[in-house]
Amino acid sequence: MSKVFRWPVRVYYEDTDAGGVLYHASYLRFFERTRTEWLRALGFEQTQLLEQFGLLFAVRQMSIDYLRPARLDDLLNVSLEVLKTGKASMQVLQQMHREDELLSTATVKIACITEESFKPAPIPDMIKKEIAHA
Amino acid sequence: MSKVFRWPVRVYYEDTDAGGVLYHASYLRFFERTRTEWLRALGFEQTQLLEQFGLLFAVRQMSIDYLRPARLDDLLNVSLEVLKTGKASMQVLQQMHREDELLSTATVKIACITEESFKPAPIPDMIKKEIAHA
Amino acid sequence: MSKVFRWPVRVYYEDTDAGGVLYHASYLRFFERTRTEWLRALGFEQTQLLEQFGLLFAVRQMSIDYLRPARLDDLLNVSLEVLKTGKASMQVLQQMHREDELLSTATVKIACITEESFKPAPIPDMIKKEIAHA
Amino acid sequence: MSKVFRWPVRVYYEDTDAGGVLYHASYLRFFERTRTEWLRALGFEQTQLLEQFGLLFAVRQMSIDYLRPARLDDLLNVSLEVLKTGKASMQVLQQMHREDELLSTATVKIACITEESFKPAPIPDMIKKEIAHA
Repeated sequence: MSKVFRWPVRVYYEDTDAGGVLYHASYLRFFERTRTEWLRALGFEQTQLLEQFGLLFAVRQMSIDYLRPARLDDLLNVSLEVLKTGKASMQVLQQMHREDELLSTATVKIACITEESFKPAPIPDMIKKEIAHA
Repeated sequence: MSKVFRWPVRVYYEDTDAGGVLYHASYLRFFERTRTEWLRALGFEQTQLLEQFGLLFAVRQMSIDYLRPARLDDLLNVSLEVLKTGKASMQVLQQMHREDELLSTATVKIACITEESFKPAPIPDMIKKEIAHA
Repeated sequence: MSKVFRWPVRVYYEDTDAGGVLYHASYLRFFERTRTEWLRALGFEQTQLLEQFGLLFAVRQMSIDYLRPARLDDLLNVSLEVLKTGKASMQVLQQMHREDELLSTATVKIACITEESFKPAPIPDMIKKEIAHA
Repeated sequence: MSKVFRWPVRVYYEDTDAGGVLYHASYLRFFERTRTEWLRALGFEQTQLLEQFGLLFAVRQMSIDYLRPARLDDLLNVSLEVLKTGKASMQVLQQMHREDELLSTATVKIACITEESFKPAPIPDMIKKEIAHA
């Protein structure tokens, strides 16, 4: 089973809306930062994926629950756990906590695609290996 | 059955990312603009909801499929159709097209909540009536 | 002297912050939308500039005054007027009004640069001609 | 003379645009994060300013130079230095570096305003004291 990766995120004015809380699309930005930092922790930068392999990771499907609002100045803890790894895609579970409170949970299906045509491509073996060992 | 509401949205630099396409969180902004314009077309502004009733519509759950990328300068057609209306929430189907191509589809559960405590509150009758007649 | 180009922009939740007003970086997005629509009205899309000429317009310098806050649901009127056109750059004056109230004013220096190296490049003659005749 | 405060910022997909670089309005978000972290380092959170004093810091004027593009995955160093402190406003110099390269520089005039009416209000003494000692 996969280990849980965690990344701290602070809520700034830029992330909020006139309702006084974290804007609902900002959750997706925070989940993506965490996926990027997870890949970086495994040894891969997205710039390098693009330049070395001509590959991108793109979100194909996402189901997200908004359970409780996050607010300005909150320090959030965003997590990522791999649920499934396929040939050209993977599925991850992401959660957002403020201390012990669960604020949001999302299941994200990510496809590995070519930069040229945006068509599915196999996830490079060296990345799969790192994911398996994480 | 509910009529389909449509709203045109143009893709600007602000909406794109370094992958050269519409950033995945920007889809949520476009879907929300369309919900806001749908409410406005029914005769309700969100500012008025807040000031007159102390109410907000907040996204509780969203399932979104990213089928094809949108690009800079694309003129998109975003739609909304009511699937269900409950006492304090509703469910809508939203789609994004570029001419005949379906780019994304989302099911969004929206809750009516109080501004004070963010607790569920009944959708005002006058709004329900307009939704039913739309 | 240059004619004034005007573009209407609506303020949505995505554009606001927890202060209840238009987020200060959103003004730049609205000014840029207006520059893009001004170019489109002259007959040029930025995608075409990129593909046909390998050129981009990039902001080099901006001075912006925030005079009065804009709010959720406001319908704003954003304007553009060319102040100067040089060989590889131009300077425009942009203003944001809500009816008769001036909310913000900005002077923006825009450079024409190559997509490859981000180095200054002459503005294509056909664009200069359209600007001169506008 | 004021000490220079520094804050590291990473560039994610959310911050970039289809030109492949940091979107020009994102610089303002990064400068603001740094102002927020500078205030926090002095002992003040903006939420507390709002709740305790009914005050906000709002940008009144900004002059920004874009010197070199920042790119995806860049780790930037954003700085803040107080230039002037007045009764109800202050002026700060902000810079963005990638290692030794200066990418952007901005002069920002910030006003202390009331949450109620957005009118100028004296900066609380305890904040002025901390700024003077920083």
